[in-house]
Amino acid sequence: MNNFQNILEHIARDIELVKDRGTVASYIPELAHVDKNKFGMHLIDAQGNHYGTGDSEEGFSIQSISKVLSLSQAFAIMGDKLWERVDVEPSGDPFNHLSLLELEHGIPRNPLINAGALVIADVLISHLENPKADFLAYVRKMANDENINYDMDVAASESKTGYTNYAAANLLKSYGNIKNDVDDVLDFYFHQCSLKMSCRQLTEVFYIFMNRGKCRRGNAFLNINQVKRVNAIMLTCGFYDEAGEFAFEVGLPGKSGVGGGIVALLPNQFCIATWSPGLNVKGNSKLGMIALEQFTTQTGLSIF
Amino acid sequence: MNNFQNILEHIARDIELVKDRGTVASYIPELAHVDKNKFGMHLIDAQGNHYGTGDSEEGFSIQSISKVLSLSQAFAIMGDKLWERVDVEPSGDPFNHLSLLELEHGIPRNPLINAGALVIADVLISHLENPKADFLAYVRKMANDENINYDMDVAASESKTGYTNYAAANLLKSYGNIKNDVDDVLDFYFHQCSLKMSCRQLTEVFYIFMNRGKCRRGNAFLNINQVKRVNAIMLTCGFYDEAGEFAFEVGLPGKSGVGGGIVALLPNQFCIATWSPGLNVKGNSKLGMIALEQFTTQTGLSIF
Amino acid sequence: MNNFQNILEHIARDIELVKDRGTVASYIPELAHVDKNKFGMHLIDAQGNHYGTGDSEEGFSIQSISKVLSLSQAFAIMGDKLWERVDVEPSGDPFNHLSLLELEHGIPRNPLINAGALVIADVLISHLENPKADFLAYVRKMANDENINYDMDVAASESKTGYTNYAAANLLKSYGNIKNDVDDVLDFYFHQCSLKMSCRQLTEVFYIFMNRGKCRRGNAFLNINQVKRVNAIMLTCGFYDEAGEFAFEVGLPGKSGVGGGIVALLPNQFCIATWSPGLNVKGNSKLGMIALEQFTTQTGLSIF
Amino acid sequence: MNNFQNILEHIARDIELVKDRGTVASYIPELAHVDKNKFGMHLIDAQGNHYGTGDSEEGFSIQSISKVLSLSQAFAIMGDKLWERVDVEPSGDPFNHLSLLELEHGIPRNPLINAGALVIADVLISHLENPKADFLAYVRKMANDENINYDMDVAASESKTGYTNYAAANLLKSYGNIKNDVDDVLDFYFHQCSLKMSCRQLTEVFYIFMNRGKCRRGNAFLNINQVKRVNAIMLTCGFYDEAGEFAFEVGLPGKSGVGGGIVALLPNQFCIATWSPGLNVKGNSKLGMIALEQFTTQTGLSIF
Repeated sequence: MNNFQNILEHIARDIELVKDRGTVASYIPELAHVDKNKFGMHLIDAQGNHYGTGDSEEGFSIQSISKVLSLSQAFAIMGDKLWERVDVEPSGDPFNHLSLLELEHGIPRNPLINAGALVIADVLISHLENPKADFLAYVRKMANDENINYDMDVAASESKTGYTNYAAANLLKSYGNIKNDVDDVLDFYFHQCSLKMSCRQLTEVFYIFMNRGKCRRGNAFLNINQVKRVNAIMLTCGFYDEAGEFAFEVGLPGKSGVGGGIVALLPNQFCIATWSPGLNVKGNSKLGMIALEQFTTQTGLSIF
Repeated sequence: MNNFQNILEHIARDIELVKDRGTVASYIPELAHVDKNKFGMHLIDAQGNHYGTGDSEEGFSIQSISKVLSLSQAFAIMGDKLWERVDVEPSGDPFNHLSLLELEHGIPRNPLINAGALVIADVLISHLENPKADFLAYVRKMANDENINYDMDVAASESKTGYTNYAAANLLKSYGNIKNDVDDVLDFYFHQCSLKMSCRQLTEVFYIFMNRGKCRRGNAFLNINQVKRVNAIMLTCGFYDEAGEFAFEVGLPGKSGVGGGIVALLPNQFCIATWSPGLNVKGNSKLGMIALEQFTTQTGLSIF
Repeated sequence: MNNFQNILEHIARDIELVKDRGTVASYIPELAHVDKNKFGMHLIDAQGNHYGTGDSEEGFSIQSISKVLSLSQAFAIMGDKLWERVDVEPSGDPFNHLSLLELEHGIPRNPLINAGALVIADVLISHLENPKADFLAYVRKMANDENINYDMDVAASESKTGYTNYAAANLLKSYGNIKNDVDDVLDFYFHQCSLKMSCRQLTEVFYIFMNRGKCRRGNAFLNINQVKRVNAIMLTCGFYDEAGEFAFEVGLPGKSGVGGGIVALLPNQFCIATWSPGLNVKGNSKLGMIALEQFTTQTGLSIF
Repeated sequence: MNNFQNILEHIARDIELVKDRGTVASYIPELAHVDKNKFGMHLIDAQGNHYGTGDSEEGFSIQSISKVLSLSQAFAIMGDKLWERVDVEPSGDPFNHLSLLELEHGIPRNPLINAGALVIADVLISHLENPKADFLAYVRKMANDENINYDMDVAASESKTGYTNYAAANLLKSYGNIKNDVDDVLDFYFHQCSLKMSCRQLTEVFYIFMNRGKCRRGNAFLNINQVKRVNAIMLTCGFYDEAGEFAFEVGLPGKSGVGGGIVALLPNQFCIATWSPGLNVKGNSKLGMIALEQFTTQTGLSIF
């Protein structure tokens, strides 16, 4: 379908004209240096054909997008026992993330908010022999790509300034919902978030969520019921307190990161990734949201 | 597909064995009399074929399910200007519905919580000549069924005891987000919620959300972009603070009511409704949730 | 002590120079007409000597100050059983008054927030034969002054626009913490708040709280333990979410109203009232707060 | 006044009969070992006369009572500039301490909740040359007692398990309201809370708050306006979410600690301390609250 290629290029041209490109995240100092004018978009279809435009092969910090990958690994290990430690409801909350934790006695609302991802990190540390190396190997295997790596500068930068995450991890520990040492959990978490990938690589990694749990070489990472559940969590919880808006405008399960990346997918049909570093007020990539809305509107392809 | 008929009957037999059927809603006195042992399930496919089991043709009070219908009519009238008065985010909130209203200055989180539905009711009163009659006519036309009616006893019962709704409506009025008389808005709202339908009728009415906005006779009630958005809202907001759970377990856009009904749909494929009056602690039909989870797990049919 | 007279006059002269006099309350239309330049201050000492300055003998709408009087009457009737229906803790809450009610299942935080005062109104309606007349008689008797009256225009004005109070009353009713008809409770409440008094009259009425429960003619309205408790509630809860600030700056038990009045007292020594219609952002009289802070600082007279 | 001695002994006899002595705090492991049957009560009057009963000369961990002392030292150093970093309103909040911080952007409600005390600790670290030593010297000087010391075991115990405080300090740091290293602030804070004193020593230390800022040897620690403000904060914020109740029942400014101590005072008249390790559900000494209520009721001595 050259059609996909045409649509991506058409949207990219429209996007170029948008004046307000949002604000590059500054709370992680290392991310603040990224060029705001970058824009990439990439799609892989069910047959494995690639379509890309702009900076779609340039690596960037995937940040919170990595939460879907750690969730996937933890879910494969723990099965449904995982849900004893984290819920699957949208947080619906623009501001007081920690208050929900207090209200709900240390059980995070879902695995895609920071508190939930810290619990997932704790689960992985308990079950993996060499947590950071094993998680990286897992992600590389999903994409069949040994070039995927942590960005140590980004991890170090967040480790120095991530006070909110230190607060969340200690609060979870006070409720007994972190079993390992708080510093170990945060070290793992900051590395996980520092994963560097291009849009193209993201579509390769997330191919399993579009393909009933199997990567392009046919290896199963999750069973079909598990994939359905991870996709459901992406849809209801993948965009902070803008999850409803993303479902409403775009209509695909997906996940965003403060590095400016977004990945989304239509089961059995395609996986798509965008990158534009400027964020909107809710912390999601401004141009990425627009591009994906245009994509599902123009193609009529969405889960709804 | 006689297959659908077999699956429905198989699930109904399993459901019969479930011992804890939940609790019948008692806060609306008139609903408390309903027989807890009722169970019905009905499906209509894209071609208009009907499959049903149990009490699928017996009418019950659809209650909050009606919010999707009033939303639909208001959206058709107002277009995207509607979203200036109500948001599209999940409330994620187990307990303090009114506090969110206060926090967000009178803009309800979404049109499927009570406060949001009251704003929608206010919109309809402003735009319809004979609001109650016109809304009923709209619903009858969707289903091509003149037998659909309000249950005046239920409406009267709720009017006498619906103090929480009186509170919400007055709070909205204090923020200027109700334009008409509070009593008129509540009178419309209590009638809307009292609509009585069977599972079979529900699938006929909700056929338009599965069929890109058109009813079975081909009349368009919403355009394709609007249907996508209403389905997105059902998925993220249709089950109170159990929306994530329903997406996670069932994986279909849908809506529940305290009368024990649930309706859900897979775009372009089918619309399904269940009825069992006993509710779980979150206020959704206990057996209906189980039946629908089994249905999408056994058929492998879901949006994810 | 001509000293008191000198101090009052000295403060009044300083107050005249304050440029920003705050904002007159507009949410009760009838109150919006009041002249912002009014300023009165009045003191009665334990011996019954009067000291006044400015508009200290002009009547104004005492509004929430009346909550102390209805509390007093209900406490005298019910004794400590009253505290089963309302708590005695500061609400500490700048914005979401109703959310606290939801969180705490219909038991208002204290009798001086609106929700608490509505419960007190409900108690009085249950126990008084002619609630409005009997409450007025009670207040007149405290002050030995038959000229104290409701302002029917203010009561009618609030009855038409008091949607937040309608919301609170209905929410309380939904929790069963209002026993009478909601409309009757609100009618009583709006009348109670419409009481019109001058600063001089306020000091006469509140004399009992400074004088161990007895009015100037020696009649006991509360016993000494009850007065201690009402004074404690005034100190911790009398100024909405500025209670801490008032205790901190002024250091006296007291109560404010949106009509611009404040009354405060030092047990066994004096009772003082101010009136200036402009309010600060927390809804307390701007100049009244300043004048009382100056008064306790200059005299060194406070409970601390 | 031998009268005071009689009253203390009389109350102590009554207290002996109370069956439910509450629960000893267990979240600081080192405190869990304390003998629940301990009870002490001590009073110093304005003239410096001492009256004591029970275990009034046995040392215990004063914990949160120390917050008044650090506040006092910081207030003396910073003056009113201190209030730019911490508010003076009661928190009124039974459960979600951190959520308030989030809501209010890192400005704690008052200096007597943990978050506020951490900000005060940060202020002292910025201004004192040897913070822990200088603070200890300050407290010893107030009491003219070189025997007052930190309990290193308690400090170490809390340092190992105080995750909630680590969470609060990191959250404050994320808002920029902690200037020093988080670990330094917590180290200071855990030492401050570990101060060990008897009831007798507590009354000596708190004598300055009853005596217009001057200790028994006449040295001024705060001026009269500052003392008034610290006493106001104790009254409105000194007992967590039971501050209203303590004002209501006892009617004195005071402060409690989870070690089971309470200190309270009547300006110009007396300072009184109790110790009983069992706590009520709000975290305040159960018998201490009862003893102090009886004391002010029997003597008729309170600020109200």
